[in-house]
Parts: sequence; structure tokens; C-alpha cells
Amino acid sequence: MNADTDSETGTGAMVERLARRGRVAQRAVSQLDTAAKALALNAAAAAIRDYAPSILAANARDVAAAQAKGLPPATLDRLALDEARLDAIVATVEAVAALPDPVGEEIDRRAAPAGMTLVRRRVPVGVIGIIYESRPNVTVDAAALCVMAGNAALLRGGSDAVQSNSALHAAFVQGLARAGVPEDAVQLLPTQDRAAVGAMLRAAGLIDMIVPRGGKDLVARVQADARVPVLAHLDGICHTYVHAAADPAMAEAVVLDAKMRRPGICGATETLLLDAAFPAAQRVLAALLEAGCELRGDARARAIDPRVGEASAGDWDAEYLDAILAVAVVDGPDAAMAHIAAHSSGHTDAIVTADSAVAARFLAEVDSAIVMHNASTQFADGGEFGLGAEIGIATGRLHARGPVALEGLTTYKWQVLGNGEVRG
Amino acid sequence: MNADTDSETGTGAMVERLARRGRVAQRAVSQLDTAAKALALNAAAAAIRDYAPSILAANARDVAAAQAKGLPPATLDRLALDEARLDAIVATVEAVAALPDPVGEEIDRRAAPAGMTLVRRRVPVGVIGIIYESRPNVTVDAAALCVMAGNAALLRGGSDAVQSNSALHAAFVQGLARAGVPEDAVQLLPTQDRAAVGAMLRAAGLIDMIVPRGGKDLVARVQADARVPVLAHLDGICHTYVHAAADPAMAEAVVLDAKMRRPGICGATETLLLDAAFPAAQRVLAALLEAGCELRGDARARAIDPRVGEASAGDWDAEYLDAILAVAVVDGPDAAMAHIAAHSSGHTDAIVTADSAVAARFLAEVDSAIVMHNASTQFADGGEFGLGAEIGIATGRLHARGPVALEGLTTYKWQVLGNGEVRG
Repeated sequence: MNADTDSETGTGAMVERLARRGRVAQRAVSQLDTAAKALALNAAAAAIRDYAPSILAANARDVAAAQAKGLPPATLDRLALDEARLDAIVATVEAVAALPDPVGEEIDRRAAPAGMTLVRRRVPVGVIGIIYESRPNVTVDAAALCVMAGNAALLRGGSDAVQSNSALHAAFVQGLARAGVPEDAVQLLPTQDRAAVGAMLRAAGLIDMIVPRGGKDLVARVQADARVPVLAHLDGICHTYVHAAADPAMAEAVVLDAKMRRPGICGATETLLLDAAFPAAQRVLAALLEAGCELRGDARARAIDPRVGEASAGDWDAEYLDAILAVAVVDGPDAAMAHIAAHSSGHTDAIVTADSAVAARFLAEVDSAIVMHNASTQFADGGEFGLGAEIGIATGRLHARGPVALEGLTTYKWQVLGNGEVRG
Repeated sequence: MNADTDSETGTGAMVERLARRGRVAQRAVSQLDTAAKALALNAAAAAIRDYAPSILAANARDVAAAQAKGLPPATLDRLALDEARLDAIVATVEAVAALPDPVGEEIDRRAAPAGMTLVRRRVPVGVIGIIYESRPNVTVDAAALCVMAGNAALLRGGSDAVQSNSALHAAFVQGLARAGVPEDAVQLLPTQDRAAVGAMLRAAGLIDMIVPRGGKDLVARVQADARVPVLAHLDGICHTYVHAAADPAMAEAVVLDAKMRRPGICGATETLLLDAAFPAAQRVLAALLEAGCELRGDARARAIDPRVGEASAGDWDAEYLDAILAVAVVDGPDAAMAHIAAHSSGHTDAIVTADSAVAARFLAEVDSAIVMHNASTQFADGGEFGLGAEIGIATGRLHARGPVALEGLTTYKWQVLGNGEVRG
């Protein structure tokens, strides 16, 4: 047995031990009422506030180490905390504590043919593994959402944020403990051994769901290797289709926002589909160009405005996350929906039209987690959906889709209320 | 490249081709209204009735081949069709056609902070792979459930039933086609190449969900190898806990039914937990023994009746599927629930008690797909739950749990109804 295997075995055993401790704590958390969970989260928020100086000091050590390693400015920005960011973290915990509690909610009630009453009721998923990169706020956001939905969290943060995560975690669980909630409800993996991620991904039966939070490489690795169900999205190749009957001013405003408000978020539109019968296509393209957006179009789009560059085949499947937009001219809703069916990543697709029948068809037929009518795809966000917070956005086809908050961290069980019935 | 790789590559390409054709057909099926789907299923039922002679002849060839191979009587029984069984298959299709249609159902409506209306609506899961063994009725049951919930089915039946499945499938899709539904909505893999199963299990993104129907070896292989979400249960290690306050006559009747009605089904009780304070334990054990049940107990159970044999450690995790029952004496609900937490497979666990507070605790705290009060665990069945039919029983923790019928073959999407809102 070589050192690698030793390390992998030791790490695997550690992950298993933590997951089992999480399961025990989760049984306790699953039975807490809403007030007890809110109390615990508010205590955790207060503890983070109490420990703010040591949390910020720990974060300063992480930032200094990251600077010494020459990490790029974007990573340093994701990593860095200050008082305002810490206030926002505390505010999120308090907001989650105030959300409606899905646990115990009755979602179905029926009579069985043999007489029993059948009730389906929401229950927590169980032990949730969160695998993330340099943002220390994920430590707290994920912990708060998991606890409020009656789950245990097993956190594996990035090595760049190890001091910050450790300080935030210590404060959070001290708050939980003050409120009588077991500290094991939120565990942070005490190792940066990369084998730990593999062990989490293979821990079927011990970890019930994995949520990766980070760049595409991380999500792709998790989706490829996980033996545990994964809640995530890999790509946000979002479309906005401007139908013939779109209001020109609305089309211009919605498309501009959908691409240019923040070009780098997953809900940003990456392909614009212009109906050949839409009379104000030039106006929309001009507005994009004047806002500094590079346009890559098919021949018909280039004929509308000579400043449109030439799209190659790869552009229809590109997630630019930048001020670049692919533009195709399509002949009617069927062609638009066929393009979307072929190229969408199933995240968010929108139509702009004043024709309600066409809108209804689009909303029914486009098979994405989120479909929109007359709104910017940039609204694809748990906060914008009024969910209070989100553990992530999911493009898988089962369990939970789109922005996922507390409800997506629950499942259900059947309760059968009998009077001595036998099947006979 | 050797023959094996060739075959695997060819088979993988074939599975991919069929899955893509299924996806195209599924888009059409997903947009059918309830009446159109019911019409198509009734046409499929009529076609099976029309082709009954050739279906039964095909089945007779399968049975003869299975007899020649010396397959065991239980397999021959699962394989064999007669007119009565074919009538039952047709009746199931007609019953599924009459079920409430979950597709399009609004499950949530809220206003977004920015003003849009957000609607969550049930949509089909997509392309469902069904991997099954010798029962030809699965061909039809699964096809009917998938189509009624707006999905496409990709069927991979067992080699013993190849003629029967082919005849049933041909009739079914001819019925669909008569009603204008694409035949590709239900495809039967035209090969018995074992690589096809592996290709289906790896077809993430092409197949949205796999449902294995068959013995434990099949389910275990599917769960171990699948890259696609799996809806299944592996074990049915079900418990019945007789609390101190159980009515003795009810306890006797419920426990007897829970074990002995059909000892071989997944909802059969495998472990009886007798509360030490339950006064009629001897009566319950005597009834089981007199019904021919072998009892394997701990020391306290053996002290109740000397006919109880000695349980070994493995008995607490055994799924006998036979007239054998493990019996433990426990001190109160906490000990009973601790035993269940340690040994249940999460399928179905029941309590018998007249104490409603204890029952409520048990129903809340036991973390299984189905929890029962004063009813036989043998009721764990989609038909008994009034679901009309079932694609299977799931013990996974996400998406759908317990008996799964039409609703478990759907997921949801968010529809965002705007008026030109931009995020700004």
C-alpha cells in the first residue's frame, strides 16, 4: 500500500465518519420546529457578528497568501471580506431564518381504497454536501439554508479560503450550540486533501445530495464523478426570442438588459433570435452595438447591420459570459423553438411578444427550467424570484429545477393513517 | 479495435440514436392534451386486444425456449401469458388512460419582487429508460405510464421475453400511430446485446431517468453503474413496531398480514419490534408460528415463546422475502426508532398503537419513504394507494419516494409572465 492509497483510504474513512455524524445531527435538526431553527440561525448570525474581528483577520491571512501565490484579481475579489460583506453574510442568515419553513408541509392528502388516509408531507433531504471554491460566504449561506430546511451540511471549501471558512464555520456552529442545536449539523471538512472531494462524490447512502458552487471545471468534475445526486447547472446558454409581434421599445429594453446588465452571470442571454417578421430588428441590434456588445450573426443578421460579425457554428453553443452575443434570424416561432431545442442548455429562455397565444405556446413547449415572457433572462435568480436566498440554480430534469432554495432541500414521505386495516 | 469494442461502440451509437429519436417524439407527446393521450392509450389497448392471438403465440415460443433452457418455474411463471393475463394488461392501459393527467398542473404561483408572475407547472421528465427482466407486462405498463405523463419510453426487456415483448410493443405502437402519436414515443431496443444496458446507464443527457424492474441483482447493477438518475428500491427491509398501547387483536391481525399475506413482496415486514410493555406479545408470536412463520428472535423474544429461534446479527438486516421474521423486544418508542434508523432500508415502516401522540412521533421521526400507523406494511403499493398503477417504488431520497405513478414521471418548470420588466 503506497502513500497515495493510504491517504485516500484515510480521507475516505474521515468523510464517512463526518457524514455519519452529520446523519445523527440531521435527525435532531429534522425534528426542530420553525421557531427553534430560526432561533438557532439568529444565534449563528449573532455569533458571526461577535467574531467579526477574528473572521476578518483570518480572511486577511487568506488574501495575503493568495496575493503571494499571484492569484488573479477576480479570485482575490471573490475571496476578500470586509465589514460590508460580512454584514451582508449576517443579513442573509437572518433572512433565511425568516423564510417560510417547508418541513412538515402537507402536499397531498387522499383516501386509500382500503380506507387509510394517505398524507404526503415534506421532509428534509438529509445530509447535503457542498463543494465550493473561493467565496467564503458560501460557508454561511449553504449552512443556513441546509439547517432551515432540516438538513445537515458537510462543507468542503476551497483551499484559498481555508482560514476564512474555518473562522466563519466556528462562529456559526458556536451560535447553533448556544441555541441547543448540535454542532455536527454543519461540519467543515478539516482537510484540503483533494481525495476528500472524490470521497464525497462517491458517498452514496451517506451523503444524499451534492451541490457544487463554483466555476465550470468544478461543476463538470462533480457531475462526471458523482455517485450521489447533484443539484447544479453547468452552462447557462440562454436565448431571447424577439417575435414578430414584439413591442419594439420593450424588445430593445429587454434584450439590452438580458445581455448587457451583467454579461457574466449564468442568466445572461447568449443568443438573440430575431423573427424575420419583426420590423425593428435594426433598432435592437444598434442599441446592443452602441452599448459595446460584439454581435456575431448569421447571414441574415449581418444583412440587417453591417457591424454584425460572422458567426461560426460554435457560436450557437457558446456561453460567452461576456459582452458578446450570437444573433440568428428565424422564420417564426417554430424555427425559434427548434433552435432553442437544439442549442439551449435548459437554464432560461425568453420570448418577447405582444401575441399572447404565441407566448403561451412558447411557455408550454420550450423545455427549460425557466421560460419567460416579456422579461429579461437576467431575472433567473432565487432572490429575484422572491425565494429569499438560493443554494443554486439547477438544470437537471428531476427533483428541483431553476433557482433552488429551501423547498429544493426537501423531499417528501408518505404517512399512512390506518385503523387496523390489513390487505388480506 | 477488437470485436468487443466494436460491438460496444455500435451498441452505444444505437442507444444514442434511439434516445435522440425518443426525444423528438417526446416533444410531441409532451404537448398532447389529456384527451389525446387517453385516446392513444385506448387505441393501444385495442390493438393489443386485436393482436392477442399473435402475442400469445409469440409468448408460447418464449416459454418453450425458456423450458428448453431449463429455467426455474418462478421465471416461467413470470414469463407466461394467457388470455386472462393479457386481459389484465389491456385493463391496466385503459386504467392509466383514465387517470388524472399531471402534465400542465400548476403547483405554485407567486409574484416576483420586480412584478412578474411566477408559475411552476408540472412537465414530463423526458426520455425514460426501463430495464426489466422476464415479465412481458412491464413492456405495456411502463409504456402506458410514460406516455400518459408526456414522456417517451426506451424499453430494454429481458432476453427470455424477447418474442413476447416484440409482439406487445408492435401492437402498442400501432395503436399509438392510429391515434396520431409518433411510434418513437415507445421504443423497444432491438438487441439483446448486454452492452446496451451499459450504454443506457451511461446516457446522461440523452436518457433522463432509468427505472429498473426486476430482481435485486439487476437493481444493484443499475444503481452501481448508472450515470443517469435512477428511480428504484433495492431492499424492502420493513419493520412493524407493536407499541405498549397497541390493541392486541389489531396487533395480531396487522402483524400477521404484514408478514404472511405474501411474504415475498417488497412491502412484507421483515422485522417485528415488540415493545417490552406490550402485554399480548405471546399472542402475536403464537399467531405467526401457527400460520407457519419461522421466528428468529433476540433473547427476550425467545423468553416469550420457546419456539422462537435464535437470531444472529445478520437477521436484523435480512430481507427474507419468505415466511421468516426477525423479532426483537425493545424498550419504548425511542429504542424502536433507533433500531429502525439502524436497520431499515427506508421503504416502509409501521407502528401499531392506540396512543396517538406516540403514533405522531413515529410518523414524524421515522425517515422512510412510507411510514404507517395501524396498517399492514403490505399496503405499500401504488394500486393500494389509489394511484391506478405504478412504475415502481422508490427508496431514494430525492424527486419521488414510495409508490411512483404518473406524478413521479413529471418534474416542473418555472414560467415567468412579465410585462417588459428588466433587472436594471
